[in-house]
Amino acid sequence: MLSKSQIKLITQIKQKKYRQQYGLFVVEGVKGIVELLGSSIEMDTLYTVESFNIDAKNEVVISQSDLKRISALKNPNKALGVFKIPKPREIKKEGLIVALDDVRDPGNLGTIIRLCDWFGIEELICSHETVDCYNPKVVQATMGSIARVNISYVDLPKFLYGVDMPVFGAFMDGENIYNKMVPKNGVLVMGNEANGISSDVEELITEKISIPRFGKLKATESLNVATAAAILLSEFRR
Amino acid sequence: MLSKSQIKLITQIKQKKYRQQYGLFVVEGVKGIVELLGSSIEMDTLYTVESFNIDAKNEVVISQSDLKRISALKNPNKALGVFKIPKPREIKKEGLIVALDDVRDPGNLGTIIRLCDWFGIEELICSHETVDCYNPKVVQATMGSIARVNISYVDLPKFLYGVDMPVFGAFMDGENIYNKMVPKNGVLVMGNEANGISSDVEELITEKISIPRFGKLKATESLNVATAAAILLSEFRR
Repeated sequence: MLSKSQIKLITQIKQKKYRQQYGLFVVEGVKGIVELLGSSIEMDTLYTVESFNIDAKNEVVISQSDLKRISALKNPNKALGVFKIPKPREIKKEGLIVALDDVRDPGNLGTIIRLCDWFGIEELICSHETVDCYNPKVVQATMGSIARVNISYVDLPKFLYGVDMPVFGAFMDGENIYNKMVPKNGVLVMGNEANGISSDVEELITEKISIPRFGKLKATESLNVATAAAILLSEFRR
Repeated sequence: MLSKSQIKLITQIKQKKYRQQYGLFVVEGVKGIVELLGSSIEMDTLYTVESFNIDAKNEVVISQSDLKRISALKNPNKALGVFKIPKPREIKKEGLIVALDDVRDPGNLGTIIRLCDWFGIEELICSHETVDCYNPKVVQATMGSIARVNISYVDLPKFLYGVDMPVFGAFMDGENIYNKMVPKNGVLVMGNEANGISSDVEELITEKISIPRFGKLKATESLNVATAAAILLSEFRR
Protein backbone atom coordinates (compact mmCIF):
# COMPACT_ATOMS: atom_id res chain seq x y z
CA MET A 1 0.00 0.00 0.00
CA LEU A 2 1.12 3.47 -0.84
CA SER A 3 0.49 6.37 1.51
CA LYS A 4 -0.35 9.84 0.27
CA SER A 5 2.89 11.18 1.72
CA GLN A 6 4.92 8.53 -0.14
CA ILE A 7 3.24 9.44 -3.44
CA LYS A 8 3.84 13.12 -2.76
CA LEU A 9 7.54 12.60 -1.97
CA ILE A 10 8.18 10.50 -5.10
CA THR A 11 6.42 13.09 -7.25
CA GLN A 12 8.36 15.93 -5.65
CA ILE A 13 11.80 14.42 -6.10
CA LYS A 14 11.33 14.34 -9.84
CA GLN A 15 12.20 18.04 -9.42
CA LYS A 16 15.76 19.15 -8.66
CA LYS A 17 14.92 21.48 -5.76
CA TYR A 18 13.15 18.71 -3.84
CA ARG A 19 15.92 16.21 -4.63
CA GLN A 20 18.36 18.64 -3.07
CA GLN A 21 16.05 19.33 -0.12
CA TYR A 22 15.50 15.65 0.72
CA GLY A 23 18.77 14.24 -0.63
CA LEU A 24 16.87 11.55 -2.53
CA PHE A 25 16.48 10.46 -6.15
CA VAL A 26 14.46 7.91 -8.14
CA VAL A 27 15.62 4.92 -10.20
CA GLU A 28 13.07 3.05 -12.30
CA GLY A 29 13.32 -0.54 -13.49
CA VAL A 30 14.71 -3.72 -12.00
CA LYS A 31 18.02 -3.60 -13.89
CA GLY A 32 18.98 -0.12 -12.72
CA ILE A 33 17.87 -0.83 -9.15
CA VAL A 34 19.88 -4.06 -8.95
CA GLU A 35 22.97 -2.19 -10.23
CA LEU A 36 22.60 0.42 -7.49
CA LEU A 37 21.86 -2.15 -4.76
CA GLY A 38 25.29 -3.60 -5.45
CA SER A 39 26.94 -0.17 -5.25
CA SER A 40 27.98 2.26 -2.54
CA ILE A 41 24.78 4.27 -3.01
CA GLU A 42 22.32 3.70 -0.14
CA MET A 43 18.71 2.72 -0.72
CA ASP A 44 15.97 4.66 1.00
CA THR A 45 12.82 2.76 -0.07
CA LEU A 46 12.11 0.15 -2.71
CA TYR A 47 8.61 0.04 -4.25
CA THR A 48 8.08 -3.16 -6.18
CA VAL A 49 5.31 -5.39 -7.49
CA GLU A 50 7.31 -8.52 -6.59
CA SER A 51 9.60 -8.87 -3.58
CA PHE A 52 13.32 -8.72 -4.40
CA ASN A 53 13.88 -11.22 -1.54
CA ILE A 54 16.57 -9.04 -0.12
CA ASP A 55 16.90 -8.49 3.60
CA ALA A 56 15.50 -4.99 3.53
CA LYS A 57 13.14 -3.38 6.01
CA ASN A 58 12.37 -0.68 3.51
CA GLU A 59 10.87 -2.80 0.75
CA VAL A 60 7.22 -2.00 0.00
CA VAL A 61 5.32 -4.43 -2.21
CA ILE A 62 2.72 -2.53 -4.23
CA SER A 63 0.21 -3.27 -6.98
CA GLN A 64 0.88 -2.63 -10.66
CA SER A 65 -1.67 0.19 -10.62
CA ASP A 66 0.09 1.84 -7.66
CA LEU A 67 3.37 1.54 -9.54
CA LYS A 68 1.75 3.31 -12.50
CA ARG A 69 0.74 6.16 -10.18
CA ILE A 70 4.31 6.85 -9.08
CA SER A 71 6.17 6.01 -12.30
CA ALA A 72 7.12 8.56 -14.92
CA LEU A 73 7.24 5.82 -17.57
CA LYS A 74 4.41 4.73 -19.84
CA ASN A 75 5.26 1.11 -19.15
CA PRO A 76 6.76 0.98 -15.66
CA ASN A 77 9.14 -1.91 -15.21
CA LYS A 78 8.14 -3.75 -12.01
CA ALA A 79 9.91 -1.53 -9.49
CA LEU A 80 10.84 2.01 -8.50
CA GLY A 81 13.66 2.66 -6.06
CA VAL A 82 14.26 5.76 -3.99
CA PHE A 83 17.97 6.15 -3.25
CA LYS A 84 20.04 8.56 -1.19
CA ILE A 85 22.13 11.09 -3.10
CA PRO A 86 25.72 10.32 -2.07
CA LYS A 87 27.85 13.07 -0.58
CA PRO A 88 30.37 14.05 -3.25
CA ARG A 89 33.86 12.84 -2.43
CA GLU A 90 36.74 15.26 -2.55
CA ILE A 91 37.90 15.75 -6.14
CA LYS A 92 41.19 13.99 -6.89
CA LYS A 93 43.07 16.37 -9.17
CA GLU A 94 45.04 13.67 -10.99
CA GLY A 95 44.70 11.42 -13.99
CA LEU A 96 42.23 12.32 -16.71
CA ILE A 97 39.27 14.44 -15.57
CA VAL A 98 36.21 15.32 -17.65
CA ALA A 99 34.54 18.71 -17.14
CA LEU A 100 31.19 19.80 -18.60
CA ASP A 101 30.42 23.43 -19.36
CA ASP A 102 26.60 23.63 -19.33
CA VAL A 103 25.62 20.34 -20.94
CA ARG A 104 21.82 20.55 -20.84
CA ASP A 105 20.44 17.38 -22.39
CA PRO A 106 19.80 14.55 -19.88
CA GLY A 107 20.53 11.88 -22.49
CA ASN A 108 23.90 13.47 -23.30
CA LEU A 109 24.90 13.66 -19.63
CA GLY A 110 23.82 10.05 -19.08
CA THR A 111 25.88 8.90 -22.07
CA ILE A 112 28.91 10.87 -20.88
CA ILE A 113 28.68 9.34 -17.36
CA ARG A 114 28.58 5.88 -18.98
CA LEU A 115 31.60 6.78 -21.14
CA CYS A 116 33.54 8.00 -18.07
CA ASP A 117 32.83 4.67 -16.39
CA TRP A 118 33.93 2.71 -19.49
CA PHE A 119 37.15 4.66 -19.86
CA GLY A 120 38.01 4.62 -16.14
CA ILE A 121 37.53 8.36 -15.59
CA GLU A 122 36.95 8.79 -11.83
CA GLU A 123 36.10 12.48 -11.70
CA LEU A 124 33.35 14.21 -13.64
CA ILE A 125 33.13 17.95 -12.99
CA CYS A 126 29.97 19.82 -13.97
CA SER A 127 29.27 23.54 -14.14
CA HIS A 128 26.28 24.58 -12.01
CA GLU A 129 24.22 25.07 -15.20
CA THR A 130 24.79 21.47 -16.35
CA VAL A 131 21.66 19.30 -16.03
CA ASP A 132 21.35 17.61 -12.62
CA CYS A 133 22.84 14.10 -12.71
CA TYR A 134 20.03 12.78 -10.48
CA ASN A 135 17.40 13.87 -13.00
CA PRO A 136 15.42 10.65 -13.73
CA LYS A 137 16.25 10.75 -17.46
CA VAL A 138 19.97 11.04 -16.70
CA VAL A 139 19.85 8.18 -14.18
CA GLN A 140 17.96 6.06 -16.73
CA ALA A 141 20.61 6.72 -19.41
CA THR A 142 23.59 5.93 -17.14
CA MET A 143 22.68 2.24 -16.72
CA GLY A 144 24.17 2.14 -13.21
CA SER A 145 27.39 3.94 -14.09
CA ILE A 146 26.29 6.85 -11.90
CA ALA A 147 27.46 4.89 -8.84
CA ARG A 148 30.99 4.49 -10.18
CA VAL A 149 31.88 8.04 -11.21
CA ASN A 150 32.40 10.87 -8.69
CA ILE A 151 30.25 13.72 -10.00
CA SER A 152 30.78 17.22 -8.57
CA TYR A 153 28.95 20.47 -9.39
CA VAL A 154 31.31 23.42 -9.11
CA ASP A 155 32.05 26.96 -10.27
CA LEU A 156 33.82 25.69 -13.39
CA PRO A 157 36.11 28.67 -14.18
CA LYS A 158 37.24 28.71 -10.54
CA PHE A 159 37.91 24.96 -10.59
CA LEU A 160 39.91 25.17 -13.83
CA TYR A 161 41.86 28.11 -12.51
CA GLY A 162 42.93 25.98 -9.56
CA VAL A 163 44.10 22.85 -11.39
CA ASP A 164 47.76 22.36 -12.10
CA MET A 165 47.25 20.31 -15.27
CA PRO A 166 46.77 20.98 -18.98
CA VAL A 167 43.17 21.87 -19.82
CA PHE A 168 41.90 20.55 -23.17
CA GLY A 169 38.83 21.88 -24.95
CA ALA A 170 37.25 20.94 -28.27
CA PHE A 171 36.97 23.77 -30.81
CA MET A 172 36.34 23.77 -34.56
CA ASP A 173 39.73 25.41 -35.16
CA GLY A 174 41.68 23.35 -32.59
CA GLU A 175 44.66 21.12 -33.27
CA ASN A 176 43.90 17.77 -34.95
CA ILE A 177 43.53 15.33 -32.04
CA TYR A 178 44.87 12.47 -34.19
CA ASN A 179 48.25 14.22 -34.55
CA LYS A 180 48.59 15.28 -30.95
CA MET A 181 50.47 13.58 -28.13
CA VAL A 182 48.14 13.65 -25.14
CA PRO A 183 49.37 13.43 -21.53
CA LYS A 184 48.05 11.06 -18.85
CA ASN A 185 47.01 13.93 -16.60
CA GLY A 186 44.66 16.62 -17.77
CA VAL A 187 41.17 18.01 -17.87
CA LEU A 188 39.00 17.53 -20.97
CA VAL A 189 36.28 20.21 -21.19
CA MET A 190 33.13 19.58 -23.28
CA GLY A 191 30.80 22.49 -24.02
CA ASN A 192 27.11 23.24 -24.30
CA GLU A 193 25.07 21.58 -27.08
CA ALA A 194 24.23 24.85 -28.87
CA ASN A 195 26.96 27.28 -27.83
CA GLY A 196 30.02 25.14 -27.18
CA ILE A 197 32.51 26.25 -24.52
CA SER A 198 31.68 29.61 -22.89
CA SER A 199 34.12 32.51 -23.14
CA ASP A 200 34.86 32.46 -19.37
CA VAL A 201 35.95 28.85 -19.66
CA GLU A 202 37.70 29.30 -23.02
CA GLU A 203 40.21 31.67 -21.37
CA LEU A 204 41.35 28.81 -19.14
CA ILE A 205 41.79 26.24 -21.92
CA THR A 206 45.49 25.58 -22.49
CA GLU A 207 45.15 23.18 -25.44
CA LYS A 208 42.52 23.64 -28.16
CA ILE A 209 41.83 20.40 -29.98
CA SER A 210 39.45 19.27 -32.70
CA ILE A 211 38.15 16.12 -34.35
CA PRO A 212 38.80 16.44 -38.08
CA ARG A 213 35.87 16.13 -40.46
CA PHE A 214 36.26 13.69 -43.34
CA GLY A 215 33.02 14.39 -45.18
CA LYS A 216 32.54 16.73 -48.12
CA LEU A 217 32.42 20.51 -47.81
CA LYS A 218 28.75 20.92 -46.98
CA ALA A 219 28.93 18.40 -44.19
CA THR A 220 27.35 18.37 -40.77
CA GLU A 221 28.31 21.40 -38.68
CA SER A 222 29.34 19.57 -35.58
CA LEU A 223 29.18 16.29 -33.75
CA ASN A 224 26.83 15.75 -30.84
CA VAL A 225 28.63 16.47 -27.54
CA ALA A 226 28.31 12.86 -26.35
CA THR A 227 29.72 11.38 -29.58
CA ALA A 228 32.54 13.93 -29.56
CA ALA A 229 33.30 12.95 -25.94
CA ALA A 230 33.38 9.28 -27.00
CA ILE A 231 35.94 9.97 -29.74
CA LEU A 232 38.12 12.24 -27.59
CA LEU A 233 38.15 9.90 -24.57
CA SER A 234 39.06 7.04 -26.88
CA GLU A 235 42.00 9.11 -28.18
CA PHE A 236 43.20 9.91 -24.66
CA ARG A 237 43.03 6.26 -23.59
CA ARG A 238 44.20 4.34 -26.67
CA MET B 1 -5.23 27.81 -44.39
CA LEU B 2 -4.97 24.12 -43.88
CA SER B 3 -7.35 21.73 -45.59
CA LYS B 4 -8.61 18.57 -43.91
CA SER B 5 -6.84 16.44 -46.48
CA GLN B 6 -3.52 18.20 -45.78
CA ILE B 7 -3.88 17.60 -42.04
CA LYS B 8 -4.76 13.97 -42.69
CA LEU B 9 -1.75 13.41 -44.96
CA ILE B 10 0.71 14.97 -42.51
CA THR B 11 -0.69 12.89 -39.67
CA GLN B 12 -0.56 9.72 -41.77
CA ILE B 13 3.05 10.10 -42.88
CA LYS B 14 4.21 10.02 -39.27
CA GLN B 15 3.66 6.28 -39.80
CA LYS B 16 6.06 4.21 -41.87
CA LYS B 17 3.45 2.46 -44.03
CA TYR B 18 1.99 5.77 -45.23
CA ARG B 19 5.45 7.25 -45.78
CA GLN B 20 6.16 4.31 -48.05
CA GLN B 21 2.77 4.57 -49.76
CA TYR B 22 3.05 8.30 -50.52
CA GLY B 23 6.87 8.58 -50.70
CA LEU B 24 6.82 11.56 -48.35
CA PHE B 25 8.30 12.46 -44.97
CA VAL B 26 8.14 15.33 -42.48
CA VAL B 27 10.89 17.66 -41.26
CA GLU B 28 10.12 20.06 -38.42
CA GLY B 29 11.93 23.29 -37.65
CA VAL B 30 13.48 26.03 -39.77
CA LYS B 31 17.06 24.78 -39.42
CA GLY B 32 16.35 21.26 -40.65
CA ILE B 33 14.15 22.54 -43.48
CA VAL B 34 16.79 25.03 -44.68
CA GLU B 35 19.39 22.23 -44.68
CA LEU B 36 17.15 20.05 -46.85
CA LEU B 37 16.17 22.93 -49.19
CA GLY B 38 19.86 23.21 -50.06
CA SER B 39 20.15 19.47 -50.71
CA SER B 40 19.19 17.07 -53.47
CA ILE B 41 16.02 16.07 -51.61
CA GLU B 42 12.91 17.57 -53.24
CA MET B 43 10.35 19.53 -51.29
CA ASP B 44 6.69 18.66 -51.61
CA THR B 45 5.00 21.32 -49.44
CA LEU B 46 6.25 23.81 -46.90
CA TYR B 47 3.91 24.86 -44.08
CA THR B 48 5.23 27.91 -42.28
CA VAL B 49 4.07 30.76 -40.07
CA GLU B 50 6.37 33.21 -41.91
CA SER B 51 7.20 33.08 -45.60
CA PHE B 52 10.70 31.76 -46.38
CA ASN B 53 10.77 34.17 -49.36
CA ILE B 54 11.83 31.40 -51.64
CA ASP B 55 10.43 31.07 -55.12
CA ALA B 56 8.18 28.15 -54.27
CA LYS B 57 4.64 27.51 -55.46
CA ASN B 58 4.19 25.01 -52.72
CA GLU B 59 4.69 27.25 -49.71
CA VAL B 60 1.61 27.53 -47.48
CA VAL B 61 1.62 30.26 -44.83
CA ILE B 62 -0.37 29.07 -41.81
CA SER B 63 -1.17 30.33 -38.30
CA GLN B 64 0.72 29.24 -35.21
CA SER B 65 -2.37 27.33 -34.03
CA ASP B 66 -2.56 25.45 -37.34
CA LEU B 67 1.12 24.61 -37.01
CA LYS B 68 0.41 23.20 -33.56
CA ARG B 69 -2.28 20.96 -35.07
CA ILE B 70 0.13 19.31 -37.51
CA SER B 71 3.28 19.32 -35.40
CA ALA B 72 4.41 16.40 -33.25
CA LEU B 73 6.44 18.76 -31.05
CA LYS B 74 5.26 20.49 -27.87
CA ASN B 75 6.81 23.73 -29.08
CA PRO B 76 6.72 23.66 -32.88
CA ASN B 77 9.47 25.73 -34.43
CA LYS B 78 7.84 28.02 -37.04
CA ALA B 79 7.66 25.56 -39.92
CA LEU B 80 6.97 22.00 -41.01
CA GLY B 81 8.21 20.71 -44.34
CA VAL B 82 6.93 17.75 -46.30
CA PHE B 83 9.69 16.31 -48.48
CA LYS B 84 9.91 13.54 -51.07
CA ILE B 85 11.71 10.38 -50.03
CA PRO B 86 14.62 10.11 -52.49
CA LYS B 87 14.99 6.96 -54.57
CA PRO B 88 17.96 5.06 -53.12
CA ARG B 89 21.00 5.22 -55.35
CA GLU B 90 22.81 2.04 -56.27
CA ILE B 91 25.12 0.95 -53.44
CA LYS B 92 28.80 1.59 -54.22
CA LYS B 93 30.64 -1.39 -52.77
CA GLU B 94 33.88 0.47 -52.10
CA GLY B 95 35.51 2.49 -49.36
CA LEU B 96 34.22 2.18 -45.82
CA ILE B 97 30.57 1.12 -45.52
CA VAL B 98 28.52 1.07 -42.31
CA ALA B 99 25.85 -1.63 -41.87
CA LEU B 100 23.24 -1.76 -39.10
CA ASP B 101 21.80 -5.05 -37.88
CA ASP B 102 18.43 -4.10 -36.32
CA VAL B 103 19.23 -0.76 -34.67
CA ARG B 104 15.84 0.15 -33.19
CA ASP B 105 16.24 3.48 -31.41
CA PRO B 106 15.52 6.55 -33.61
CA GLY B 107 18.03 8.69 -31.67
CA ASN B 108 20.77 6.11 -32.24
CA LEU B 109 20.07 5.87 -35.98
CA GLY B 110 20.00 9.68 -36.24
CA THR B 111 23.35 9.96 -34.46
CA ILE B 112 24.88 7.26 -36.66
CA ILE B 113 23.70 9.03 -39.86
CA ARG B 114 25.31 12.24 -38.57
CA LEU B 115 28.53 10.33 -37.79
CA CYS B 116 28.58 8.80 -41.30
CA ASP B 117 28.28 12.29 -42.75
CA TRP B 118 31.08 13.62 -40.50
CA PHE B 119 33.43 10.77 -41.34
CA GLY B 120 32.65 10.82 -45.08
CA ILE B 121 30.88 7.44 -45.17
CA GLU B 122 28.72 7.46 -48.31
CA GLU B 123 26.83 4.21 -47.86
CA LEU B 124 24.75 3.25 -44.84
CA ILE B 125 23.17 -0.20 -45.13
CA CYS B 126 20.28 -1.10 -42.80
CA SER B 127 18.64 -4.45 -42.15
CA HIS B 128 14.89 -4.41 -42.79
CA GLU B 129 14.26 -4.46 -39.02
CA THR B 130 16.29 -1.29 -38.44
CA VAL B 131 14.11 1.73 -37.58
CA ASP B 132 12.97 3.69 -40.66
CA CYS B 133 15.35 6.57 -41.40
CA TYR B 134 12.40 8.83 -42.37
CA ASN B 135 10.84 8.41 -38.93
CA PRO B 136 10.41 12.02 -37.64
CA LYS B 137 12.62 11.39 -34.58
CA VAL B 138 15.42 10.06 -36.78
CA VAL B 139 15.15 12.99 -39.18
CA GLN B 140 15.21 15.40 -36.22
CA ALA B 141 18.39 13.79 -34.84
CA THR B 142 20.26 13.80 -38.16
CA MET B 143 20.41 17.62 -38.40
CA GLY B 144 20.28 17.52 -42.21
CA SER B 145 22.88 14.78 -42.63
CA ILE B 146 20.15 12.49 -44.01
CA ALA B 147 20.50 14.24 -47.39
CA ARG B 148 24.22 13.46 -47.63
CA VAL B 149 24.33 9.74 -46.85
CA ASN B 150 22.91 7.06 -49.17
CA ILE B 151 20.73 4.89 -46.93
CA SER B 152 19.55 1.51 -48.22
CA TYR B 153 17.34 -1.10 -46.52
CA VAL B 154 18.38 -4.59 -47.56
CA ASP B 155 18.43 -8.25 -46.61
CA LEU B 156 21.62 -7.78 -44.55
CA PRO B 157 23.02 -11.36 -44.59
CA LYS B 158 22.48 -11.50 -48.36
CA PHE B 159 24.22 -8.13 -48.82
CA LEU B 160 27.21 -9.14 -46.68
CA TYR B 161 27.47 -12.46 -48.50
CA GLY B 162 27.81 -10.53 -51.77
CA VAL B 163 30.50 -8.02 -50.77
CA ASP B 164 34.10 -8.69 -51.64
CA MET B 165 35.59 -6.81 -48.67
CA PRO B 166 36.47 -7.57 -45.06
CA VAL B 167 33.44 -7.40 -42.77
CA PHE B 168 34.11 -6.00 -39.28
CA GLY B 169 31.80 -6.46 -36.32
CA ALA B 170 32.07 -5.31 -32.71
CA PHE B 171 32.03 -8.10 -30.12
CA MET B 172 33.02 -8.16 -26.42
CA ASP B 173 35.70 -10.78 -27.18
CA GLY B 174 36.94 -9.23 -30.42
CA GLU B 175 40.46 -8.03 -31.17
CA ASN B 176 41.47 -4.73 -29.54
CA ILE B 177 40.72 -2.10 -32.19
CA TYR B 178 43.59 0.08 -30.97
CA ASN B 179 46.13 -2.60 -31.91
CA LYS B 180 44.63 -3.48 -35.27
CA MET B 181 45.61 -2.26 -38.72
CA VAL B 182 42.37 -1.40 -40.49
CA PRO B 183 42.01 -1.31 -44.28
CA LYS B 184 40.48 1.51 -46.33
CA ASN B 185 37.82 -0.76 -47.76
CA GLY B 186 35.47 -2.69 -45.57
CA VAL B 187 32.07 -3.00 -43.96
CA LEU B 188 31.62 -2.10 -40.29
CA VAL B 189 28.57 -3.85 -38.80
CA MET B 190 26.90 -2.46 -35.66
CA GLY B 191 24.32 -4.60 -33.84
CA ASN B 192 21.02 -4.23 -32.04
CA GLU B 193 20.91 -2.23 -28.77
CA ALA B 194 19.93 -5.21 -26.61
CA ASN B 195 21.13 -8.26 -28.51
CA GLY B 196 24.14 -7.09 -30.50
CA ILE B 197 24.87 -8.71 -33.86
CA SER B 198 22.49 -11.55 -34.80
CA SER B 199 23.82 -15.06 -35.39
CA ASP B 200 22.94 -14.97 -39.12
CA VAL B 201 25.07 -11.88 -39.55
CA GLU B 202 27.82 -13.06 -37.17
CA GLU B 203 28.59 -15.94 -39.55
CA LEU B 204 29.53 -13.41 -42.22
CA ILE B 205 31.82 -11.29 -40.02
CA THR B 206 35.43 -11.81 -41.06
CA GLU B 207 37.06 -9.62 -38.38
CA LYS B 208 35.77 -9.44 -34.81
CA ILE B 209 36.89 -6.27 -33.07
CA SER B 210 36.30 -4.69 -29.67
CA ILE B 211 36.77 -1.40 -27.83
CA PRO B 212 38.77 -2.15 -24.67
CA ARG B 213 37.30 -1.11 -21.35
CA PHE B 214 39.55 0.91 -19.03
CA GLY B 215 37.29 1.07 -15.99
CA LYS B 216 37.39 -1.18 -12.95
CA LEU B 217 36.02 -4.72 -12.91
CA LYS B 218 32.38 -3.95 -12.18
CA ALA B 219 32.16 -1.45 -14.97
CA THR B 220 29.38 -0.73 -17.41
CA GLU B 221 28.45 -3.75 -19.50
CA SER B 222 28.65 -2.12 -22.87
CA LEU B 223 28.75 1.16 -24.71
CA ASN B 224 25.68 2.55 -26.43
CA VAL B 225 25.67 1.55 -30.13
CA ALA B 226 25.99 5.17 -31.32
CA THR B 227 28.96 5.95 -29.05
CA ALA B 228 30.63 2.67 -30.06
CA ALA B 229 30.10 3.62 -33.71
CA ALA B 230 31.69 7.02 -33.02
CA ILE B 231 34.82 5.42 -31.54
CA LEU B 232 35.14 2.75 -34.24
CA LEU B 233 34.63 5.18 -37.16
CA SER B 234 37.23 7.47 -35.61
CA GLU B 235 39.67 4.54 -35.49
CA PHE B 236 39.02 3.65 -39.13
CA ARG B 237 39.53 7.25 -40.26
CA ARG B 238 42.38 8.53 -38.05
